[in-house]
Amino acid sequence: MSEVRTVADIEAYLHRHIPITRDMGVRLLECSLQGVKLSAPLAPNVNHRATVFGGSVSATLILAAWTWLHFALREAGLHCQIVIQRNTVDYVAPIAGEFTAHCDGLTAAPWERFLRTLRRHGKARLELHARLQWHGKVVAKFSGDYVAVILK
Amino acid sequence: MSEVRTVADIEAYLHRHIPITRDMGVRLLECSLQGVKLSAPLAPNVNHRATVFGGSVSATLILAAWTWLHFALREAGLHCQIVIQRNTVDYVAPIAGEFTAHCDGLTAAPWERFLRTLRRHGKARLELHARLQWHGKVVAKFSGDYVAVILK
Repeated sequence: MSEVRTVADIEAYLHRHIPITRDMGVRLLECSLQGVKLSAPLAPNVNHRATVFGGSVSATLILAAWTWLHFALREAGLHCQIVIQRNTVDYVAPIAGEFTAHCDGLTAAPWERFLRTLRRHGKARLELHARLQWHGKVVAKFSGDYVAVILK
Repeated sequence: MSEVRTVADIEAYLHRHIPITRDMGVRLLECSLQGVKLSAPLAPNVNHRATVFGGSVSATLILAAWTWLHFALREAGLHCQIVIQRNTVDYVAPIAGEFTAHCDGLTAAPWERFLRTLRRHGKARLELHARLQWHGKVVAKFSGDYVAVILK
């Protein structure tokens, strides 16, 4: 399956199974072990100040990190339940147009450690970071604690 | 203006100016200095696990706290810009149905202190807490740092 096809498939999965992402106009631009990049337009996510609603900021960050973990676990051949336990968002600057959400995931060594723990105990926790960018600047920063549980 | 009318007006304001709240099916149930209560149904906020998407959890919490602050500032006769700086969300349990978001705002003494600072400096910061409930249980907890700036 080509990279383009995979990205389109995952975007369709998100829109079908998390329908608010379709209302938000979320597009999946990149999805690989190296990271996930989403975009969303201003119009459906606007607030009363003509900037992006904080709830949409949080939602796209949560989605970017979740999508990376979902994809990376699938690539590792693991069928897991993923649960977000906690997250923090720093709203660095207002966003007045289409923005992108980026999650770089984990680098190889911590990801391999995570997979070893997950395979040994059936459950493992990791912290993921993500950021929103607008016009090349970081406008929001996210960290989230996710737990993966292998499904029988 | 009656209490009921005010709540309906504020709900219409949210739906018009933060349109994703309409897609999420957010209803404003209570809005006074004593607190804000919102509800949202599962269907538009569902995820691939048939529970509420973390992004919708965050968004309704952010909205509940913002709505209380917006309303309370208006009641104090102040026209302000409200900016969220940072928030933390704890996802206590999955939510498998219609849920409510509650923000109790500040009690009288810290609210009066906040208003004094705001009137003196034109700007003040406060921390607000909110929670989601489902079937009478707290299923998510939120704290957020908001800044209000008096608009000239």
